[in-house]
Amino acid sequence: MNGEIICEGIDTSVQSLGVPTIDSPLLATARCVEEHERVIIDSSLAAVNACLRENREIPSFERAGPRKKIFFDSSKTKCGIATCGGLCPGINDVIRGVVHELYYMYGVENIYGIPYGLQGFIPRYRHSFIDLTPSFVENIHGLGGTVLGSSRGSQDIGEVVDAIERVNLNIVFFIGGDGTLKAASAVAREILSRGYTCSVIAVPKTIDNDISFVSQTFGFDTAVEEAGKVIRCAHAESKGAPYGVGLVKLMGRDSGFIAANAALACREANFVLVPEEDFDLEGETGLLATLERRLKARGHAVVVVAEGAGQKFFGGLPRKTDLSGNVRKGDIGLFLKEKIEEYFFARSYQVNLKYIDPSYVIRSVVANSSDSIFCGFLAQMAVHAGMSGKTDMLIGLWNNTYVHIPIALSVRERKKIDTTGPLWMSVKESTGQPIMRNG
Amino acid sequence: MNGEIICEGIDTSVQSLGVPTIDSPLLATARCVEEHERVIIDSSLAAVNACLRENREIPSFERAGPRKKIFFDSSKTKCGIATCGGLCPGINDVIRGVVHELYYMYGVENIYGIPYGLQGFIPRYRHSFIDLTPSFVENIHGLGGTVLGSSRGSQDIGEVVDAIERVNLNIVFFIGGDGTLKAASAVAREILSRGYTCSVIAVPKTIDNDISFVSQTFGFDTAVEEAGKVIRCAHAESKGAPYGVGLVKLMGRDSGFIAANAALACREANFVLVPEEDFDLEGETGLLATLERRLKARGHAVVVVAEGAGQKFFGGLPRKTDLSGNVRKGDIGLFLKEKIEEYFFARSYQVNLKYIDPSYVIRSVVANSSDSIFCGFLAQMAVHAGMSGKTDMLIGLWNNTYVHIPIALSVRERKKIDTTGPLWMSVKESTGQPIMRNG
Amino acid sequence: MNGEIICEGIDTSVQSLGVPTIDSPLLATARCVEEHERVIIDSSLAAVNACLRENREIPSFERAGPRKKIFFDSSKTKCGIATCGGLCPGINDVIRGVVHELYYMYGVENIYGIPYGLQGFIPRYRHSFIDLTPSFVENIHGLGGTVLGSSRGSQDIGEVVDAIERVNLNIVFFIGGDGTLKAASAVAREILSRGYTCSVIAVPKTIDNDISFVSQTFGFDTAVEEAGKVIRCAHAESKGAPYGVGLVKLMGRDSGFIAANAALACREANFVLVPEEDFDLEGETGLLATLERRLKARGHAVVVVAEGAGQKFFGGLPRKTDLSGNVRKGDIGLFLKEKIEEYFFARSYQVNLKYIDPSYVIRSVVANSSDSIFCGFLAQMAVHAGMSGKTDMLIGLWNNTYVHIPIALSVRERKKIDTTGPLWMSVKESTGQPIMRNG
Amino acid sequence: MNGEIICEGIDTSVQSLGVPTIDSPLLATARCVEEHERVIIDSSLAAVNACLRENREIPSFERAGPRKKIFFDSSKTKCGIATCGGLCPGINDVIRGVVHELYYMYGVENIYGIPYGLQGFIPRYRHSFIDLTPSFVENIHGLGGTVLGSSRGSQDIGEVVDAIERVNLNIVFFIGGDGTLKAASAVAREILSRGYTCSVIAVPKTIDNDISFVSQTFGFDTAVEEAGKVIRCAHAESKGAPYGVGLVKLMGRDSGFIAANAALACREANFVLVPEEDFDLEGETGLLATLERRLKARGHAVVVVAEGAGQKFFGGLPRKTDLSGNVRKGDIGLFLKEKIEEYFFARSYQVNLKYIDPSYVIRSVVANSSDSIFCGFLAQMAVHAGMSGKTDMLIGLWNNTYVHIPIALSVRERKKIDTTGPLWMSVKESTGQPIMRNG
Repeated sequence: MNGEIICEGIDTSVQSLGVPTIDSPLLATARCVEEHERVIIDSSLAAVNACLRENREIPSFERAGPRKKIFFDSSKTKCGIATCGGLCPGINDVIRGVVHELYYMYGVENIYGIPYGLQGFIPRYRHSFIDLTPSFVENIHGLGGTVLGSSRGSQDIGEVVDAIERVNLNIVFFIGGDGTLKAASAVAREILSRGYTCSVIAVPKTIDNDISFVSQTFGFDTAVEEAGKVIRCAHAESKGAPYGVGLVKLMGRDSGFIAANAALACREANFVLVPEEDFDLEGETGLLATLERRLKARGHAVVVVAEGAGQKFFGGLPRKTDLSGNVRKGDIGLFLKEKIEEYFFARSYQVNLKYIDPSYVIRSVVANSSDSIFCGFLAQMAVHAGMSGKTDMLIGLWNNTYVHIPIALSVRERKKIDTTGPLWMSVKESTGQPIMRNG
Repeated sequence: MNGEIICEGIDTSVQSLGVPTIDSPLLATARCVEEHERVIIDSSLAAVNACLRENREIPSFERAGPRKKIFFDSSKTKCGIATCGGLCPGINDVIRGVVHELYYMYGVENIYGIPYGLQGFIPRYRHSFIDLTPSFVENIHGLGGTVLGSSRGSQDIGEVVDAIERVNLNIVFFIGGDGTLKAASAVAREILSRGYTCSVIAVPKTIDNDISFVSQTFGFDTAVEEAGKVIRCAHAESKGAPYGVGLVKLMGRDSGFIAANAALACREANFVLVPEEDFDLEGETGLLATLERRLKARGHAVVVVAEGAGQKFFGGLPRKTDLSGNVRKGDIGLFLKEKIEEYFFARSYQVNLKYIDPSYVIRSVVANSSDSIFCGFLAQMAVHAGMSGKTDMLIGLWNNTYVHIPIALSVRERKKIDTTGPLWMSVKESTGQPIMRNG
Repeated sequence: MNGEIICEGIDTSVQSLGVPTIDSPLLATARCVEEHERVIIDSSLAAVNACLRENREIPSFERAGPRKKIFFDSSKTKCGIATCGGLCPGINDVIRGVVHELYYMYGVENIYGIPYGLQGFIPRYRHSFIDLTPSFVENIHGLGGTVLGSSRGSQDIGEVVDAIERVNLNIVFFIGGDGTLKAASAVAREILSRGYTCSVIAVPKTIDNDISFVSQTFGFDTAVEEAGKVIRCAHAESKGAPYGVGLVKLMGRDSGFIAANAALACREANFVLVPEEDFDLEGETGLLATLERRLKARGHAVVVVAEGAGQKFFGGLPRKTDLSGNVRKGDIGLFLKEKIEEYFFARSYQVNLKYIDPSYVIRSVVANSSDSIFCGFLAQMAVHAGMSGKTDMLIGLWNNTYVHIPIALSVRERKKIDTTGPLWMSVKESTGQPIMRNG
Repeated sequence: MNGEIICEGIDTSVQSLGVPTIDSPLLATARCVEEHERVIIDSSLAAVNACLRENREIPSFERAGPRKKIFFDSSKTKCGIATCGGLCPGINDVIRGVVHELYYMYGVENIYGIPYGLQGFIPRYRHSFIDLTPSFVENIHGLGGTVLGSSRGSQDIGEVVDAIERVNLNIVFFIGGDGTLKAASAVAREILSRGYTCSVIAVPKTIDNDISFVSQTFGFDTAVEEAGKVIRCAHAESKGAPYGVGLVKLMGRDSGFIAANAALACREANFVLVPEEDFDLEGETGLLATLERRLKARGHAVVVVAEGAGQKFFGGLPRKTDLSGNVRKGDIGLFLKEKIEEYFFARSYQVNLKYIDPSYVIRSVVANSSDSIFCGFLAQMAVHAGMSGKTDMLIGLWNNTYVHIPIALSVRERKKIDTTGPLWMSVKESTGQPIMRNG
């Protein structure tokens, strides 16, 4: 359930290094995908009819999968994998999948792990590439985090491409979020502009699930499961003390998908605050008075807040950015903790507020079964794309089909909860929370 | 990832009890779905273009969701819920969701649980209806199974409808599999033919995930997770003894989805046998000789078999059906156990075969986080459909959108693994298993 | 594995309300424990021989279990249960066990839950007693926290006893930690001094496992399991970034049992800091320089710190106490975070420190299998003790036997890790951490 | 909670290869245990007093732990580890612990894994020893089963000792059950009789927890946890169908510890049948009629049966033994399934019996947190014992202290549930099951 899809006038064509001419080793065993196989983006009948009526092309994505002809000669191909940004369940599954697919299916034997993300390309950090063999990756899917290490922040694109050329990589897989995708795209374009032959394929990684044109990112399902457990704890804490309030801050810089879904997974949250829906603190219909009514009626409450919610309360603060280039958010969790305690203190109630900020505990666990399967497919599709000479693109799942999406299109804007759609409606039903805005 | 979709000439129109004329109580808070909102079934560009070229209508499903006008007056509406067939994770989540949606969103207060499936309608079984209040269902999602009880086997449709009329039910929700769906459809048609006013809405339940035009059924994700754990155990057993063979029989009467996905979730299976792909036992390329080569090379092996695989080996047996009308399968698990042991005994190898048949342990667990969220949506959509007077239909998820599907269409044939598609290709890559057929 | 046991000169005699004269309803089915059955406290041969040599009595505890004669007439007995202090896995299991044992085995039907701990006795808080029936407690063991609610802080003992008399309770079960045990003992003594007939039985609850003469408290096993998972996350985070440091603060005000055991459960901690072993920050052998050497050698590190460790660094702070009367600790977690970041910043290293403070997530989960069984026994033994008229005592597990321990004896001092014993030795082996003290 | 301890006249003295003369490398860091430190076996005061009265020695065990002087010179020591018999959670934890302790603490670098248990010593099986380095064992505790492989059945003791001499092993660690312990003892005695210098240390492994003088064996806690989950599934199945009966067969050849504890962990079992308590099928008070009454009253039932229960029903069968020398049991699970179905069929009831036999799924999982910690201690204590030259002994946990127990003493008889003690009494309370014997 994605938000409104605006796909008018978008460019979905995927870059290619050239015409693939080598017979794929998978030709015998797999049903190969033809170049012209495409998946309609907006599968509502109305959207299709509008295109027909207005004589516009129906927007669609290129289907992912093995091609009959590939671009790179397996025996001479050299690949690199880099993992960037914060942790997310399933990174090691993707790494393992890429190595297995390259090695066993395409016969590529030169596969390197770039340590600590983009830093690993830059000589002055003195990180050594890791030789990624099937035996090295054999059991890594049982470990949280990334065996390659990661880092935040951008590096000089020229230096990155210098390294790629120096080491003579033919395909580079980037596993990362918004910032990484932009960097990967810049790397791909710089490579093309230098006339060097190297494919850049991205597997989008964002625990917030906020990549446009990607139904769901890996790790999200696991994160929701873990976040649901934390809400359950907050519920136990809230019921365990007079006027107990369990306050949980969850990931979600710009989109409240984790908060919303975790609330549906656990059903004990009474308030879910997300960046997509504005709320006020003060006034009769604001959060504080609403919370007070809830506490008086039921004796306890659970409040779930996405980290990007309520940023208007930090309006006066200077804008800072973190190493990944993300604007630093004011800490809405601690802010609410303080405001709630102040409010009830002023009214001579002793609320028992338990504040839980579980971020690392959610993102560094091992991928669950569903994410693990998902990561396997993403990895295979990424390898197929790379071997066929595609570049500057990412692998997405759209309408239950794996597709190729130009990076530029996906990073144009963040995916957000459609506050008029079924997801948010469900959250409001489950919590019973009203609109908490004045005037 | 569904198999090939053949949707030419299908009838996707949903029956209705009449024109809804009552303003929905959700009008103020939810974005309501218009009747004409439809979702294209096959979202491949080629399929759409073929329709245009051939001047055929593009096949599509009616979108599920709340309507502006509803058919039933909440204050007078009486609803029943029945759960039929075998257990499946998430049934209680659906029951809870239906009760909550009816009660809190539509204000329906008369909701009854029909005990033990279709039996509950039949007077001679003397089961009493259960009063389903919000407090009754409060914590049932923490329990496996179904709080209503279930039963297999059909009952006289006339008697079922007699009961519905006698008790004066206006909406009946059936949660069940293939047999139940057929019965529900017959009930809906009998009701219509009698001129009685009662909506019949089904939520498809099949742990095998084999309902046509339904991307995924609830409980399947949980079942795959549990099945993956069992394969992990089989792997430990196989490595724990000289010539160890772990043999796991999983659910899957006609479709091997659980076996295939569980193999991808755990990655330790060396052979996955499903109904969709024929295999031979004997001969140089048959299963037994292939297994022998594997054992000689690696010392151990894990074999996963779906219960419906290899039914040709029982060709001589008389066809029996079980209470649900399903053809009784020969027990491929025990059959393989015997054949493997015989084969190696004849060759003077002592294989250590550990046979695991975990079915009840997989299907009776509590739904995982992802299924729990999914069940919530299914329940809500079922209530919206029922309240708006739809009947003889089920709720499905298609292209990430909840849709209404006529029951008749969905039970036409079982969904199966496309053995040329990415799912099966992934399984073959993961296991390394060859085609095991002679000649 | 307890620390050194100093049991010379201790008083292990348990108070009694009078001579039990009523035949126990369990007489027919259970092997009853005789009053003179006792368990030696220190089962080392040397300790026993010392007693013999010095002609001292061998210190021993009264064995818990059903008695042939009971003190209270079941049909007229009225019981109360109160849960006090912070949450701990298993509280609901104990409540359920007490209710079941009283109701089904002794036929006691008047059982009340005192809401929100000691507050529940005090009229001005206006909390109503909860009627604890078997059906009320049926599924509560599936919930974290306490269904009765809890509160911190002491209340006027006279007022508590007034309430007990007013409501006419005959047995009161207190589930709580150090402060609660002291209060329970005061209540028991006040009752005795008033000549009222009411038994006070405590089940010790401390997630820190620091009650003297109690091998292990309920919930501890679960807490260690959860804490181990968190350390695993910290490990993934530490390996996921250049110079990654995972810093985990765990419960343990005076004793580091959770930190030590969790480190053994996960084996990824490199430093475990507990109240029982002093450490310095500065200097060549201090924590910071030792951590620097570790980071330079291995690139990452996991530091686990019990909340009560390193309190000497807060020497200048005024002593505060919390509501439960515990001395407020300086926050060693945040302190170390700051000190580590400062230290490496000054040396121009960018450490990536991820700080995790999971307390609520550890203590509010559902009890694991082992704790759940344990809680069942504690509850049964508590009921046997209460019904036989014992008072001012708690139930402990000692040498694998359930025993009666006078409260006064148990609260004399906190149990601590023996830093020369096998537990701490194992931690040091597992972490490889040196003594980090200067001079 | 062990059964009655009969320790009169037992021989607890542990064999030694000679006087240890080498300073232990742990001398500086650990508190070493003196040879004379002993732990009283029966810590009941009455037992001690009886000894004093009768002027008998108080029976006690030698305390385990590091010694100041060791027997083997680390730099020249060569060690082997063999794992025998069925799988059990935690074997890999013990292997890892032994390797770590030997390598890091004692500096022993020559450590070999004997593949597939006793078979690994016998040349004709052609198994190669495995070089056990710290890196080999690094992550094995995350895997179920045993990385060394195992096998059942005895081998010629002479051949085993020949191999030990040929390879020149100085310490051999055996991880195994009753049969293995006997073999290990025979090996130890044969080594002594040949005048060769090799220590034989056993870590008892039995998922049934039935080793005498060992409070609990590793893996048992995990097995109970898993078994409890299965009972929960059986409960869901039993409630999910009219006259539903969930029948679970659990491990327990001679002792019903798993069945009893799992029933307490889940609390949904209505009948627990164990080898220690006889029951009849027929007659008014037999199992079948009792079950009928339960079904009529409540509509469903859960029956848990230990595999060794009800063996009297197979009286006529010829006695067979399996490869480990255990007497083959009649399959009480399938027997009960048939008898129950027959009984109700004859009475025209259709019971819905779901039979679950989960053995492999229980024993091959990864050790839980508690068992993992426990295995670590067992491994360390085993290494201390071996390095100090002890032999023909096993490591046990007794009265919360790790001790040395002569193998001969421990295998004398199986530990059983004391049916008059608190464990069984708790089970009877929880199930409400009566004595089911006629006449």
